Amino acid sequence: MDERPIGVFDSGVGGLTVAREILRQMPEEAIVYFGDTARVPYGSKSRETVTRFSLQDVRFLLTKNVKAVVVACNTASANSLPAMQAAFQLPIFGVVEPGAKAGAKATKNGKVGVIATSSTIQSGAYQQALRREPEVKEVYAKACPLFVPLAEEGWTEDEVADLTARRYLRELQDRGVDTLVMGCTHYPLLRRCIGEVMGPKVTLIDPARETILRVKEALSSANALRQSDQPPQHHFYVSDRTAMFETICRKAIGQVYEAEEIAIEQY
Amino acid sequence: MDERPIGVFDSGVGGLTVAREILRQMPEEAIVYFGDTARVPYGSKSRETVTRFSLQDVRFLLTKNVKAVVVACNTASANSLPAMQAAFQLPIFGVVEPGAKAGAKATKNGKVGVIATSSTIQSGAYQQALRREPEVKEVYAKACPLFVPLAEEGWTEDEVADLTARRYLRELQDRGVDTLVMGCTHYPLLRRCIGEVMGPKVTLIDPARETILRVKEALSSANALRQSDQPPQHHFYVSDRTAMFETICRKAIGQVYEAEEIAIEQY
Repeated sequence: MDERPIGVFDSGVGGLTVAREILRQMPEEAIVYFGDTARVPYGSKSRETVTRFSLQDVRFLLTKNVKAVVVACNTASANSLPAMQAAFQLPIFGVVEPGAKAGAKATKNGKVGVIATSSTIQSGAYQQALRREPEVKEVYAKACPLFVPLAEEGWTEDEVADLTARRYLRELQDRGVDTLVMGCTHYPLLRRCIGEVMGPKVTLIDPARETILRVKEALSSANALRQSDQPPQHHFYVSDRTAMFETICRKAIGQVYEAEEIAIEQY
Repeated sequence: MDERPIGVFDSGVGGLTVAREILRQMPEEAIVYFGDTARVPYGSKSRETVTRFSLQDVRFLLTKNVKAVVVACNTASANSLPAMQAAFQLPIFGVVEPGAKAGAKATKNGKVGVIATSSTIQSGAYQQALRREPEVKEVYAKACPLFVPLAEEGWTEDEVADLTARRYLRELQDRGVDTLVMGCTHYPLLRRCIGEVMGPKVTLIDPARETILRVKEALSSANALRQSDQPPQHHFYVSDRTAMFETICRKAIGQVYEAEEIAIEQY
């Protein structure tokens, strides 16, 4: 048993969809969430900068005595997971490997697509992880930079979102993918629109679910799950206090937590 | 005469449109440009964070021995110009006041619109500056958060951009504005699309032009213009090295300069 909280970080507020999965699958666990809202997004930035930011994010979570870290941000997972794992002694989980495994499990025809930020796609991490799976024959990757601002603008059930999705996803449809990995935490907020464009025969994968399944297995086999009569206390931190946190918190978790502001560059 | 360069900073690469105006109006002047590409955008962030970042940006430019600073970023101008002017001894020029003056000069019916990032609109800086002008009777402001990602995606001559612009600009049209201030450095890249939606009777104002006119006047009256037989040397710095700098540099200036990467959080 390990009473310490699980740390979760994201470039901003999208990672709240990953926190939601912890609440669902591991309701006994306490969460410390950090969203780097002062430097969001990571998805348009270089690997070096994403790695520098990610190491600071983990360092901050370590000051909160976390027992493990979940890198909710796909861009940080894709670019910087090995650097983080090399730098710190605790278990650090990314979303890319679990997302790829879930995609491999779901595909029937072996053609899998992945959509993500420019930086995630450029890293090639999803493509490599998918190609390691024997079920996967062909991999098609597409950066969709406008999906994050569309989700943040709240234009998720919308003509502009539909048109944008059709534009981005056309080539994946043409390739005949039957499975699409949503490799960015914001994209599940556009699930309806992405699903309508891709059609009912295409399975949409949200890596968060599979990631937290793995985290649960790992903590369980290390006998490090939390067991307590007390309900868990969650803590949320951001590097810039904006209204966006509340909006997405309500959308993702269905409940608004208060976030404390911290100066991330000091870590 | 003052041989020292003019400092220009922006949250990212949009401020290159302001650098272009210096090249056009003051071809003798040397420019030191800093784009905070590691922390871009500023437009969705709080006033406190924008001010903290802006002070660091000016501190960096001061290490390059600049004689004046042009705050190309509308968000930083709108939120943080007084803080910067209070903190430093050299002349610091924002784009909001000149943009508002240009809008006032252009309007015939006294109805002026301004479009900008969320943070700029929330600051109320353009609205206040416009209301100080006797020519201006009514001011209408609208945040257009998707315009920056659209411009960066290069979707400027495009159905998605047209639809987005119609959505954002409809209420300004309904109000009958005859002048529209583009209060974000990226928006001139969408000028055609914004112009088509607003129609030929609406004058579009790019604050960069008026701002540099003012800078020239100020330096001239202080006898601080550069005069030299040597062509000026320009220097470009970014906090994250990304392909976006080159793309926008080519679009805005028509020539690609190499940018050096610096660690802005150390300033």
